[in-house]
Amino acid sequence: MVEPRVLKGFRDSLPLDELRRSFLIDTIKGVFSSYGYAPIDTPCLEYEDILLSKSGGETEKQIYAFEDNGKRRVALRFDLTVPFARLVAQHAHKEIELPFKRYHIAKVWRGENSQAGRYREFYQCDVDSVGTTSPKSDAEIATILCSSIKALNVGSFKMHISHRGLLKGALLALDVNSNTSDVLRTLDKLPKIGQEKTEEVLLALISDKDKVKSLLAFASFKTPASILCKRDELLKKLPILKNLSEPLDNLSEIYSNIPEELQDNIILDLSITRGLDYYTGFVFETFLDNGSSVGSVCSGGRYDNLTAHFTKESISGVGGSIGLDRLLSTLGEDCSLKGSADIYVVQRFPSALSHSFVQTLRSTGFRVDESAEMRKNNHTYRYAEINKIPYVIFIDEKEYVFKDIATHSEEKFKSENALIKKVKATLKR
Amino acid sequence: MVEPRVLKGFRDSLPLDELRRSFLIDTIKGVFSSYGYAPIDTPCLEYEDILLSKSGGETEKQIYAFEDNGKRRVALRFDLTVPFARLVAQHAHKEIELPFKRYHIAKVWRGENSQAGRYREFYQCDVDSVGTTSPKSDAEIATILCSSIKALNVGSFKMHISHRGLLKGALLALDVNSNTSDVLRTLDKLPKIGQEKTEEVLLALISDKDKVKSLLAFASFKTPASILCKRDELLKKLPILKNLSEPLDNLSEIYSNIPEELQDNIILDLSITRGLDYYTGFVFETFLDNGSSVGSVCSGGRYDNLTAHFTKESISGVGGSIGLDRLLSTLGEDCSLKGSADIYVVQRFPSALSHSFVQTLRSTGFRVDESAEMRKNNHTYRYAEINKIPYVIFIDEKEYVFKDIATHSEEKFKSENALIKKVKATLKR
Repeated sequence: MVEPRVLKGFRDSLPLDELRRSFLIDTIKGVFSSYGYAPIDTPCLEYEDILLSKSGGETEKQIYAFEDNGKRRVALRFDLTVPFARLVAQHAHKEIELPFKRYHIAKVWRGENSQAGRYREFYQCDVDSVGTTSPKSDAEIATILCSSIKALNVGSFKMHISHRGLLKGALLALDVNSNTSDVLRTLDKLPKIGQEKTEEVLLALISDKDKVKSLLAFASFKTPASILCKRDELLKKLPILKNLSEPLDNLSEIYSNIPEELQDNIILDLSITRGLDYYTGFVFETFLDNGSSVGSVCSGGRYDNLTAHFTKESISGVGGSIGLDRLLSTLGEDCSLKGSADIYVVQRFPSALSHSFVQTLRSTGFRVDESAEMRKNNHTYRYAEINKIPYVIFIDEKEYVFKDIATHSEEKFKSENALIKKVKATLKR
Repeated sequence: MVEPRVLKGFRDSLPLDELRRSFLIDTIKGVFSSYGYAPIDTPCLEYEDILLSKSGGETEKQIYAFEDNGKRRVALRFDLTVPFARLVAQHAHKEIELPFKRYHIAKVWRGENSQAGRYREFYQCDVDSVGTTSPKSDAEIATILCSSIKALNVGSFKMHISHRGLLKGALLALDVNSNTSDVLRTLDKLPKIGQEKTEEVLLALISDKDKVKSLLAFASFKTPASILCKRDELLKKLPILKNLSEPLDNLSEIYSNIPEELQDNIILDLSITRGLDYYTGFVFETFLDNGSSVGSVCSGGRYDNLTAHFTKESISGVGGSIGLDRLLSTLGEDCSLKGSADIYVVQRFPSALSHSFVQTLRSTGFRVDESAEMRKNNHTYRYAEINKIPYVIFIDEKEYVFKDIATHSEEKFKSENALIKKVKATLKR
C-alpha cells in the first residue's frame, strides 16, 4: 500500500476549482478567437539546450531537467515564450505564415522554493502577434487583453502603459550613461518599494541628487492616457518629453487605435519598464482596482527579436500574458460560477413517474446530474451542497418536487411539461 | 544559435491541428457536463512510487522518471487512471463525496519506441462514475460515450458490449481451469488475429479440441444487443448462457437503461473481454463503421477496486476512455472544422471607409482577423488560405468588397449595415 500524496508545490484540481479555471480559460479563449487568434500547443518536454538557449543561469537552477531513456538531456518547459520562439523559428514560411497570431494556455514547471501561493506547476496564458511592426498590432494586443479582463467580470481595472524608449530617452537626456539596466530595474519596482527607497537605491547608482530627482519625477508621472492626444498639455507637464517624440508618437498611435469604450481603462505610467531586457517598445501592466495585493494580472509589450537564439531572421512582435492564478484568486469563493451541475435529479420511491424530462433538459443545455440510486433526503442535500448544485428535482410516485437548495422552498408538479417550464423559467434559458 | 527541433515522438500542435483538437475536446466536454460530470486535473509530475504502485514491470520501462532537485524520485504520469485512483483515495469523504462523477482530459507520457502514429506525448480522455454499483451507472457511462461520439459527427458506429462474468462463466462451464488469463487475453484479440490463429493459440493453452471449438463459438457470438430483452431467443441460440443468469441479468438491465435512440448502436459481442485484469463486470469497445483501421475509439468497463493500492476501502466504479488521437485522425483534412477565423479584414488604401463593423461582427460571435497593415491581394489570399479563413472583406475608399475565397465570387457594399447583413446571411448566425 502506498500513501496517497502529491509532491510539494503541486496540487490536485478538484471539480469546483477546475470548473472555475475552465470558466476563466473558456472566457479568455472566446475573446482571443473573436480576434482571429488561434490556439497552439508545444511538447511539455523539450531538449534541454532549446529551453536553456537564452538562460542567464537563474533558469538552470529552477528547471526540471534529466536524462531520458535514450540518453538525451531533456527538460520540462518553464515558460511558453521559449517554446513559442522555437516553434516560430522552426515553422515560419513553411506551415505558418507571418503575421502569426496565436495564443497558448498551458502548464509550465519551475522547481523553485515553494512559498505560500507559489507553485511548481502552474498555468501561463500568452497571446502574441508576430511578424508585424504596426502600432495597430500593439493596440490589438492591448485591446484583446482589456476585453478579456472585462469579460471575466472581476471588477474595474487599469492598464498602465508606457514605451521603453521614453525612460531610456530620459536617461539619455539626463546624461545618465552607466548602470542603465540597474536604474531601469529599480524604477520598475517604484510602485512596490516606494519613493524613498527608490531614491536611495538610485542615488547609489547615479550619485547625482538632481538627476535622481528628475528621474523620479519622470517615473512618477501617471495620468489618464487620453493626454497622449493632447500633446501640448503633456509637454507642458513634463517638458523633458520634447526630446522623445519618436516613442511618444508611437505610443499615441497605439492609444488612439484602442477602441473608445476601453480608453478610460488606459493609464500613461512612465514607471512601467517591465524588468526584462527583452522588451523594446510598447510595455504595459494591468491592475485590478480592488486587487492591490495580487499585483499585475496581465502584462507584456513589444519585442524586436523573438527568435534570436534559433534563427538569423529577426522576427519581431507584440504580446502579453494573463496571470490566470492571480485572477482565479480574485474570483472569490462565492463568485457566480456554477457547481458541477445545474440540477440534481433523485428518485425517492421504487415506483416513480417517468424521468424522460431529464434528457429534454440536457438537450436544452442544462447540466443535469441524475442519481443512479434511490436516495434519502439528507444524502441528497449533502451531495447537492458539496457539488454546489443549486436545484434538486425529486421524482416521486405521483408528482415531481422542484426544490431550491438555498431557500429550501419547493414546488410540486404533476406533469413533466409543467416541470420543464418551471426549470426553464427559474434557470432562465 | 541552437537548432530549433522537437524530441522524437513529440510534436508541435499548430493552429489548424489545435483547432481540431479543441473542437473535439469542447464537444466531448459539453456532453460530459450535460450529465453533471465535472472536470478534474492532477499534477503531471508525481512521486514515482505512486505511479508505479500497480505496475507489472512494463510501465517501468516506459515511464519518464528521474530525481528532482530535492532528491525525490518523481515521474511524469503515463495514464490518468493511477492519478485518479490516488486522488480518490486521498480526497474521498473529505473534499469529495461519493458517488463521484468526473472526467479528465489531459496529456500523458510514455517513452516507448515511437513507431508510425505512436507518440510519446499524447492525450487521454477518461470519464468515470465511482462509488456506485447500480447498473444505471454503467448505462450512463455507455450513454455518455455514445452521445459524445454521435456529437462529433464522425459517422455511424457500434458499441460492442459484454460482461466479464460471461466468458469467465463459460470457461467454468466448459471446465477450463488453467491459463484462464491467457485464454481471455487471446480471445480479446480474436477480431485482430482472426479465427484460425486464435484457435491455434487456444489449442496450445487448453489442448482439448472440443472445448476450443465451443469457446470460439461462444466468443464469436455477435448480435444486436436488443436480444438481451428476448431471453428465450438468446438462450436458444447459445444454450451455455443458461448457467450464466447473473451476469446476463446485469447486462440486460444495463442495456435497457440506455436511451432508445442509442440502442441500435449497441452490439452484444461475447469476444469483448478487455485484456486488463482490472475489469470485473460490464465491458465495452466502440468501432466506427468506416474506421476499421483505427481500432476501438472508446472502451471501458466496470471495476471493483479502483483504489486498491492506496487505501483499504474498496471503491468500485465504471468508466471509459475516448481515443482522441484516433478520432482526430478520422476527422479528415476537409472536415467541417473552421480555420483560425471566419473572416479576414484587409484595408487596401491609405484612406478608407470606417472599420467599426469589425467590432460589431465580433460581438455577434464571429471570429474576425483584421490585418494591421495594408495588404496586396496575393498576400491576402495566401494568408486566408493557409489559415483556412473562408471569407475576406476588403475595406476600400468608397466601398466594402466581400469575397468568398472558395468560389472567388465577390459582392460590393456601400454601407456597413448592408455588409453586416450580408455576413450574417452568409455565415448563418
